Amino acid sequence: MLTAPRSLGAMSDTTTARRRVLRVPATGPAEHRADLLAVEEPLEIRVDGQPLTVTMRTPGSDIDLAAGFLYTEGLLPRPDAVREVRMCDENVAAVTLGPGQTLAGRPGARNFLTTSACGMCGKDRIESIRVRSPFDVAADPVRVSPAVLARLPDRLRAAQRVFSRTGGLHAAGLFSADGTLLALREDVGRHNAVDKLAGWALRGGLVPLTGHVLLVSGRASFELAQKAVMLGLPVLAAVSAPSSLAASLAGETGLTLVGFLRGATMNVYAGAHRVVTEDAPVAAPG
Amino acid sequence: MLTAPRSLGAMSDTTTARRRVLRVPATGPAEHRADLLAVEEPLEIRVDGQPLTVTMRTPGSDIDLAAGFLYTEGLLPRPDAVREVRMCDENVAAVTLGPGQTLAGRPGARNFLTTSACGMCGKDRIESIRVRSPFDVAADPVRVSPAVLARLPDRLRAAQRVFSRTGGLHAAGLFSADGTLLALREDVGRHNAVDKLAGWALRGGLVPLTGHVLLVSGRASFELAQKAVMLGLPVLAAVSAPSSLAASLAGETGLTLVGFLRGATMNVYAGAHRVVTEDAPVAAPG
Repeated sequence: MLTAPRSLGAMSDTTTARRRVLRVPATGPAEHRADLLAVEEPLEIRVDGQPLTVTMRTPGSDIDLAAGFLYTEGLLPRPDAVREVRMCDENVAAVTLGPGQTLAGRPGARNFLTTSACGMCGKDRIESIRVRSPFDVAADPVRVSPAVLARLPDRLRAAQRVFSRTGGLHAAGLFSADGTLLALREDVGRHNAVDKLAGWALRGGLVPLTGHVLLVSGRASFELAQKAVMLGLPVLAAVSAPSSLAASLAGETGLTLVGFLRGATMNVYAGAHRVVTEDAPVAAPG
Repeated sequence: MLTAPRSLGAMSDTTTARRRVLRVPATGPAEHRADLLAVEEPLEIRVDGQPLTVTMRTPGSDIDLAAGFLYTEGLLPRPDAVREVRMCDENVAAVTLGPGQTLAGRPGARNFLTTSACGMCGKDRIESIRVRSPFDVAADPVRVSPAVLARLPDRLRAAQRVFSRTGGLHAAGLFSADGTLLALREDVGRHNAVDKLAGWALRGGLVPLTGHVLLVSGRASFELAQKAVMLGLPVLAAVSAPSSLAASLAGETGLTLVGFLRGATMNVYAGAHRVVTEDAPVAAPG
């Protein structure tokens, strides 16, 4: 099991910007005052000297973001394909691949749905946009009790440094199965927050993240579910709703998908065998 | 001024999917039940026969989404460059450009931050990722009272068909300056909801949307602010926080940016001259 690092995040005050705003109250006159905003800046990712993409992100953990993005989007042939990432400017991450490694695709393209002809449905459609994970999360024997899951959102929120000041950041937290927060990342983009965690885990040689839980502060999209599977994470929990395709992907890969994790209640959309314990038996039908 | 179309949206039941979930209550046994999820499916956008990108979206208004995406991302040389969009599959939109029209870039690439050398800061950075709008929103003389703005979120929510059932969709609403809802679109991706509105407006010859207000249900990112400016919209309002770069872009272009629009209160981050009226005077400093 991983041990909690000394620093849970890597946020500095490059993450907030002060701005003068006009506050309009419910009654009485409007007034100018200072407000803190979450910083959003473009990060260009270059691979072996070639510009690959620009992502809008909150500065901080940029090296992890670049590496995590490349891996979880399926653009790397293997988790350890990156030799080095360095910032050659505060908003440009230059990635160098290892000897003989080349990019497996380009961002946003995924595998195009169809090649020459149209026509595709159901499971084929998922297959076409799915990135192949080297890890089989279905085989992960970990169990997580509802009581542990119910405590995670409060722990995430308590550790969030920037949200409470700006109200503007998504968070992703990596937890052990007993509910210990191991790492937290925040970003204006929820995918970026997960990619920052991913890069951190890759850099530490911690992938696959067998036996761990990923919690995201918002909704669970297909792409977040896919990133979890790419990291070998058996459990993805979200404070808000999952999408239909996130639930489908979870069902097919063996990922446990928890949504609407609020207070002591939650919905389990796939992989419920990991969540239901003797302490929370399933009601017998009928 | 635009008149309200008969149908405010174009959502059908392709937007929700029923799924069996395990509901874990605060006390008592967990139980299986049916739950509705927001549908997320990939849409491939092809231009003149070439695959361009895949976006994850909620099906519905796909033709508008394709056209709106291409225009607001700055990939079209002009608002009317699209001759035709047809669905050649339920998840493939085939765009045909008009005679002599070609794509001005590729998605996600924007203008790369730097070309050969690193090094760029402040205003240059915005310039590098900014798409040039043919419209000058700074010149729009429209004014919107705080009282009108305060009513918009409730009107948006009341008109949302899918969110209330799934809790999983972003919404974007186009309003007249007197607060009349003209069009509403929902999507699992907030950018998509705006692009669907954009395509609808382009198709109807309504761009630039001079004198109108765009309300989004979540946060206001740089990209959403940019889409507003591309559409010639003078006012962007968000229920949640804006990012720093959204506020900067608004300040530079003359876009009025309202955030945290909740109840009767709001923050105005740029272009406050359009919001403050005699009914809500600014408090004198000191």
